[in-house]
Amino acid sequence: MNTLTGARSRKLGLPPGTLVHLGEKKTATALVTLVDYDEGQFTEAVAERADACTPFRDRPSVTWVNVDGIHDVEMVESIGTCFGIHPLVLEDVVNTGQRIKVEDFDDYLFMVFRTADLDGPGGRIDTDQLSLILGANFVLTFQEKASPLFATIRERLRNEKAKMRKAGADYLAYALIDLVVDHYFAVLEKLGDRIEDLEGELVQKPTQATFGAIYAIKREMLGLRKAVWPLRELVGSLSRGESPLIHDATQVYFRDVHDHAIQIIDTVETFRDILSGFVDVYLSSVSNRMNAVMKVLTIIATIFMPLTFLAGLYGMNFRYMPELEWRWGYPTLLGVMALTALGMTWFFVRKGWIWERRGVRGERRAAAALPNKKKARQK
Amino acid sequence: MNTLTGARSRKLGLPPGTLVHLGEKKTATALVTLVDYDEGQFTEAVAERADACTPFRDRPSVTWVNVDGIHDVEMVESIGTCFGIHPLVLEDVVNTGQRIKVEDFDDYLFMVFRTADLDGPGGRIDTDQLSLILGANFVLTFQEKASPLFATIRERLRNEKAKMRKAGADYLAYALIDLVVDHYFAVLEKLGDRIEDLEGELVQKPTQATFGAIYAIKREMLGLRKAVWPLRELVGSLSRGESPLIHDATQVYFRDVHDHAIQIIDTVETFRDILSGFVDVYLSSVSNRMNAVMKVLTIIATIFMPLTFLAGLYGMNFRYMPELEWRWGYPTLLGVMALTALGMTWFFVRKGWIWERRGVRGERRAAAALPNKKKARQK
Amino acid sequence: MNTLTGARSRKLGLPPGTLVHLGEKKTATALVTLVDYDEGQFTEAVAERADACTPFRDRPSVTWVNVDGIHDVEMVESIGTCFGIHPLVLEDVVNTGQRIKVEDFDDYLFMVFRTADLDGPGGRIDTDQLSLILGANFVLTFQEKASPLFATIRERLRNEKAKMRKAGADYLAYALIDLVVDHYFAVLEKLGDRIEDLEGELVQKPTQATFGAIYAIKREMLGLRKAVWPLRELVGSLSRGESPLIHDATQVYFRDVHDHAIQIIDTVETFRDILSGFVDVYLSSVSNRMNAVMKVLTIIATIFMPLTFLAGLYGMNFRYMPELEWRWGYPTLLGVMALTALGMTWFFVRKGWIWERRGVRGERRAAAALPNKKKARQK
Amino acid sequence: MNTLTGARSRKLGLPPGTLVHLGEKKTATALVTLVDYDEGQFTEAVAERADACTPFRDRPSVTWVNVDGIHDVEMVESIGTCFGIHPLVLEDVVNTGQRIKVEDFDDYLFMVFRTADLDGPGGRIDTDQLSLILGANFVLTFQEKASPLFATIRERLRNEKAKMRKAGADYLAYALIDLVVDHYFAVLEKLGDRIEDLEGELVQKPTQATFGAIYAIKREMLGLRKAVWPLRELVGSLSRGESPLIHDATQVYFRDVHDHAIQIIDTVETFRDILSGFVDVYLSSVSNRMNAVMKVLTIIATIFMPLTFLAGLYGMNFRYMPELEWRWGYPTLLGVMALTALGMTWFFVRKGWIWERRGVRGERRAAAALPNKKKARQK
Amino acid sequence: MNTLTGARSRKLGLPPGTLVHLGEKKTATALVTLVDYDEGQFTEAVAERADACTPFRDRPSVTWVNVDGIHDVEMVESIGTCFGIHPLVLEDVVNTGQRIKVEDFDDYLFMVFRTADLDGPGGRIDTDQLSLILGANFVLTFQEKASPLFATIRERLRNEKAKMRKAGADYLAYALIDLVVDHYFAVLEKLGDRIEDLEGELVQKPTQATFGAIYAIKREMLGLRKAVWPLRELVGSLSRGESPLIHDATQVYFRDVHDHAIQIIDTVETFRDILSGFVDVYLSSVSNRMNAVMKVLTIIATIFMPLTFLAGLYGMNFRYMPELEWRWGYPTLLGVMALTALGMTWFFVRKGWIWERRGVRGERRAAAALPNKKKARQK
Repeated sequence: MNTLTGARSRKLGLPPGTLVHLGEKKTATALVTLVDYDEGQFTEAVAERADACTPFRDRPSVTWVNVDGIHDVEMVESIGTCFGIHPLVLEDVVNTGQRIKVEDFDDYLFMVFRTADLDGPGGRIDTDQLSLILGANFVLTFQEKASPLFATIRERLRNEKAKMRKAGADYLAYALIDLVVDHYFAVLEKLGDRIEDLEGELVQKPTQATFGAIYAIKREMLGLRKAVWPLRELVGSLSRGESPLIHDATQVYFRDVHDHAIQIIDTVETFRDILSGFVDVYLSSVSNRMNAVMKVLTIIATIFMPLTFLAGLYGMNFRYMPELEWRWGYPTLLGVMALTALGMTWFFVRKGWIWERRGVRGERRAAAALPNKKKARQK
Repeated sequence: MNTLTGARSRKLGLPPGTLVHLGEKKTATALVTLVDYDEGQFTEAVAERADACTPFRDRPSVTWVNVDGIHDVEMVESIGTCFGIHPLVLEDVVNTGQRIKVEDFDDYLFMVFRTADLDGPGGRIDTDQLSLILGANFVLTFQEKASPLFATIRERLRNEKAKMRKAGADYLAYALIDLVVDHYFAVLEKLGDRIEDLEGELVQKPTQATFGAIYAIKREMLGLRKAVWPLRELVGSLSRGESPLIHDATQVYFRDVHDHAIQIIDTVETFRDILSGFVDVYLSSVSNRMNAVMKVLTIIATIFMPLTFLAGLYGMNFRYMPELEWRWGYPTLLGVMALTALGMTWFFVRKGWIWERRGVRGERRAAAALPNKKKARQK
Repeated sequence: MNTLTGARSRKLGLPPGTLVHLGEKKTATALVTLVDYDEGQFTEAVAERADACTPFRDRPSVTWVNVDGIHDVEMVESIGTCFGIHPLVLEDVVNTGQRIKVEDFDDYLFMVFRTADLDGPGGRIDTDQLSLILGANFVLTFQEKASPLFATIRERLRNEKAKMRKAGADYLAYALIDLVVDHYFAVLEKLGDRIEDLEGELVQKPTQATFGAIYAIKREMLGLRKAVWPLRELVGSLSRGESPLIHDATQVYFRDVHDHAIQIIDTVETFRDILSGFVDVYLSSVSNRMNAVMKVLTIIATIFMPLTFLAGLYGMNFRYMPELEWRWGYPTLLGVMALTALGMTWFFVRKGWIWERRGVRGERRAAAALPNKKKARQK
Repeated sequence: MNTLTGARSRKLGLPPGTLVHLGEKKTATALVTLVDYDEGQFTEAVAERADACTPFRDRPSVTWVNVDGIHDVEMVESIGTCFGIHPLVLEDVVNTGQRIKVEDFDDYLFMVFRTADLDGPGGRIDTDQLSLILGANFVLTFQEKASPLFATIRERLRNEKAKMRKAGADYLAYALIDLVVDHYFAVLEKLGDRIEDLEGELVQKPTQATFGAIYAIKREMLGLRKAVWPLRELVGSLSRGESPLIHDATQVYFRDVHDHAIQIIDTVETFRDILSGFVDVYLSSVSNRMNAVMKVLTIIATIFMPLTFLAGLYGMNFRYMPELEWRWGYPTLLGVMALTALGMTWFFVRKGWIWERRGVRGERRAAAALPNKKKARQK
Repeated sequence: MNTLTGARSRKLGLPPGTLVHLGEKKTATALVTLVDYDEGQFTEAVAERADACTPFRDRPSVTWVNVDGIHDVEMVESIGTCFGIHPLVLEDVVNTGQRIKVEDFDDYLFMVFRTADLDGPGGRIDTDQLSLILGANFVLTFQEKASPLFATIRERLRNEKAKMRKAGADYLAYALIDLVVDHYFAVLEKLGDRIEDLEGELVQKPTQATFGAIYAIKREMLGLRKAVWPLRELVGSLSRGESPLIHDATQVYFRDVHDHAIQIIDTVETFRDILSGFVDVYLSSVSNRMNAVMKVLTIIATIFMPLTFLAGLYGMNFRYMPELEWRWGYPTLLGVMALTALGMTWFFVRKGWIWERRGVRGERRAAAALPNKKKARQK
């Protein structure tokens, strides 16, 4: 499948509201988890069939239905129908590649997020689509595959004294969104480590692989940026209390998430600036190395060409070449050659081409000027 | 004809409202298709003469007149007159090169779109102008040439139970616009494939042809971008219900199209960012190859110049050169030469110029860091 | 005169409203043309003295006074006084280098435009200042030199049945502005031709002259852009009916001009993007050619240096060099040399340096990827 | 003193309103000039002590107090106290490095400008801070050093019939600001001359000094830009009549100044664009020259290396080398060498490396494409 | 610890309001300083335990509690509880890496700043988080470590006649913020010194170390910019009197701080522009040096290759080489060689490659065009 655009075109010409799963199937079978709680009770269940959620629909307690694996279009459709969700919304839920957004349907808010993950030291950022529907007393979440993220929420919910147990569905939605947003910090920290490693490599001995790695991170950042930029406006609109589904008491928490979103965006932008600087440093180091190579070549050629010419001169077979007969011809010529070589060398020293150790010291000074990763780590 | 600007100047100085077809003639004869339907009936006809549409004008049922081939200025004019369209609008209809826009003329909305097409693996993006006029109970569409796009709509209309049959002209307009907008996804997918192919080529062995291809796609994107950027505002204004011609029930569908338009713009921008990165990668690989070439030259020259000098030295014909007479002179010199060559080689190894296999490994690592196309495809 | 800034400083310290002509004198003598018309009559005259316009001032018919040659400060002043124009406005009229703007003085609107012209295949864009003052029943236009543009308007006015004859001064102003704006299309078409020619040259065989031409067009565009950018806002404000001098019926025409202005700006921006891309293509082609030169040098040096060394070796005059005495010494050495040369060549073939025909093919492929000018022309 | 930031830190930790002069002392002793006028009378005096201005304070006539040399903190303070100016304002007056701004203190407006000056052909732009306080019937101006600018205003004031004599303090402020703003045109004209000279140099024979000069002008522009950008908003707010201190009749004049400010900003931006283009041209010319150098080297090496090898071959001392004994061996070899050289030359001609006169012609064509300074001057 | 992002992820999944210190511990033990004052009295104390602040809470006098060392989470919590601060605020206080912001909690304003410090000539910019909570009659400040900044405020407070003693808590907050903002000027001055030093180095003899230093300063600026950009809006909102906690009389002072913040941002942006220019200058100097190296190589090779070929030619051992027998063969050849060398030299002189002293002079001219640091210092 085309990783850049998705396979959107497969739906071309179908009437709107036709549910077709677009995206890769990331988990074998879809899993539906049902949680229902209020201050007094806590029910947890794995739903086999979608109609399992019907009894919870009209209860005043908070119901959280989580679906892992949105390729199960029928399951999504029946849950959606049960809670009265518009077909266009369900279409968006099953089509990955949605943009990050919040839509207000009066009875419920429909939000789309992307959760990010970065596995292994050389791994790529993996983003999954998370759709969240917040109603008066229910929260529906749809993920591409089961993520360990939501387990901590369930853990907190099991605790009878948790603040979440007393709060409404909006607080649950906040807790879920907060988790998603905060998880970006973890991804950014890992990226930050890689960037610092790259900076060290760039200072020590940049190779083409360093450049490849810079490019690869820049590339990864493109997707991350697309996922986090709209967060500012999304969470911002939630925190301004534009929907009655978000109670006043919860708004201060959304303001906090809004804050985190801005911090994340700032960090992403800073990373981009740093990486742009890396490209400059790399290209300048390539130029400098080319310069050094050229100098070596020029020094060697400039010293040996005249010498070789002189040697060739006295290798000629002319019958009448008086110098060849001289007693001290050979030592004299050797002397002339030595003088020529010394003169050339002096010329290059004056030009600052030899003793380019200075250049090496320079590189060391440049290295010192760059933030030392090891030192920074020890802090 | 000038492909960048059109031949606008041909109209210079003519009074406004003079209908002159500007643009290339993309189809031999203009074809007018008439469709009239409501919940109960469906009429389809190919109009020979423009007055064929008069009987449908005042009926309450929805009338859709589609013209393929806008070079037939008289046909456009008579249809326009029949539905009471302003001459300036008809002028815009027959002049290709209009910008994407929506204009509200109270009785009807006039919209200009561009449909995009990308044929063949090396083909170029071909955009055609599509003018759409939405009245209370009619939709007029004008295309440069017949496109297979609208056939699917006609197919859906023939189905008696289709939602479209029950809805008004605004829903038909929505269906048509949705199709045009969604078709961009197909074009972007093909472009995305090409970009991924280019990325592979860039990593394996970038040649000047790779750069040419990067440039060519960037160039294509310029036109595409011009066609999609104004879509956001256009469809946005339709979805905000600024015109009474769009009923409330249809607005939610336009909101969906709006969403798709933003996704398309995002994708176009992401492609642009990726292609900009490609240029950096290409230029850096050119520098690195130049560097490698220079190193080979320098190593060869630096090793052989001193040796050649020594050989030349003992090829001189001085009468008094004691070394020439020595019994072991020749083997000794060979030894000195070998030592010189080894010393030079050691110098280059220390400098990291030889064993540049590392460089090759580096390239491989860089290649690994880049998203592997094959792997991505298998997903 | 300084072509970049004008000679503004000559006015430094003079009281405001002092009329001094700033700019070059583009025509020998100023020519004042008077046109007065309504539905019934049409008068045309060349005014010798400025007071010629006095009789027309208070008539209800539309009066159009056109001045070619604004260096005749007295003439401008007397016309201005006759129609009650503010001295600061007249100051702007006679000072070229004004920015594009519209100013509302209640009784009249003062607008400044720049007309553009591009003569000859290698000519430069020449812009002249056009000041237009629109009153209730008069239009005053001031140009730096006579331009053939306005003749078409006069021609249309002579026709008794022209729409313009029935309309007011605002429609005349519209017709003039429309002409000025549409004339930019002609200039842009010529520029577009040049850009396509350049693209062809860039693909075939870019020389430094190509780069010079790219730079020259970019430079021309700077001035053009300065002239067209403010048009959008200017004509936009006219079309929004902010002044009672523009009647409602004329607004729809100004909306059309507004549309054209936006198209022109879009085209200018597209040209800029294309030209920026050209610089990249040019620089990359320079790098590639340098690379090719370096490769030739390196191949030659690497093949011949070892051979020359070997030849020098056996040109030495040591008394005891057994190889020299061997019967097959010479043929053996020739064989060794041939093997060395072959080995080197094999090394370069493996490195992909020889058979760089591929590179040439690559260039052809790149050329094919670029839009073919000839083909485009045939359309 | 640090020329980039001033010595702001010297004030760190002092209570606000403490008057300390920050900036260099540009004139030996401060000079206070008093002008008091209305339609009937005109008084001019040089104040020895600050209390000299007390008698003028309450008169209805317009009083203009100008201070040259703001390092005399006591003088500034006593004048400020006399006219009831807030200590924070006086602090700003004596601290150079203020940003351009206007502040409304109800009783008076406080404005900060920078006057620009460019002396000599290679001189730098010198900007001085000018603080202007406009009250109901007084204008206070504070400059770092006496500038000849204000003398022209005083000259105009002495003329009994000058419009300024009849107008109020706001018109005097307008005249002063107009002078400051218009003076930028003079500076920009000089800069424009330099830029055109540079363009000529760039086309003829760019050296590193040309690049240095480009950089130097770019650097100068940074400061100029900082001084002129805020002017637009500043004068704009004055012209919109936001303060009752500016009478309606004067607003039209401020609108004119506003216009000039925008023109200045436009010119500065155009200069920046032109200079950016220069950098591209310079770098491309450096690349082209490097390319030319490389070609010469490659041609020479490629022609002579095979020849030298052949000569070395027949300089070998093998006993059995049949060619050496041939009668026509030597002439034959000379022929082979000539053929080799000719073949190589033919190869380079075909590659377009020789006859690079074309390149030179190309440069001339590029030069022709650039606007010719001399021609432009003659206009 | 990751210096780019902090260790935010450690809090992932914890309920909001959980106080965990994130950031490095910059001081051994937390120190709480209590100051309470009004016009009549002044009390100063070092609090051992947090409840020490309770008695001051309800007094009408102004209470200032300063905490150095926010890692003491319990201390922060108890102070926060004492003054009724929301747990989310306290969470932000103990987590470094907050963005610069102001939040209005009706009863108090919560602000986050970063104080900047630059130690030593080669030191890095060190920023610490400063949280400031302004209530009706109290100010709480939380710093990462004790900074000498606040001592000057305490000193001024001890003075009975200080304006601060008569003013309220908002004036104290102003004084603290003013100090923080003004301290940026000190940091910028030091950075400005470094930039001027770099400019000198760039002109004299740029090495790779110069580039490293440019990069390092650019890198430092990234962090600084992140700290100062939000200041404009923050202080701006305080000066617009959006909160009743800031009295009208204090607003004019905040307007002054706002002004300083804008100046700081302007300076930071100017520095960025200057540093970008440096990169261009550096890269151009690298290209020029490479060009010079290439020229030396080409001159040497071009002169000696033909000579060496000629020498080799007459070193051949053909039996029949008539020239070898000529009496004047050797001197003639020497003459030919001299002529060849002279011809080559003349060619290079004509090409302007030799006498490149001009290039050196050029560099000096470029140096002169750049602002001379020494001269600037003497001012």
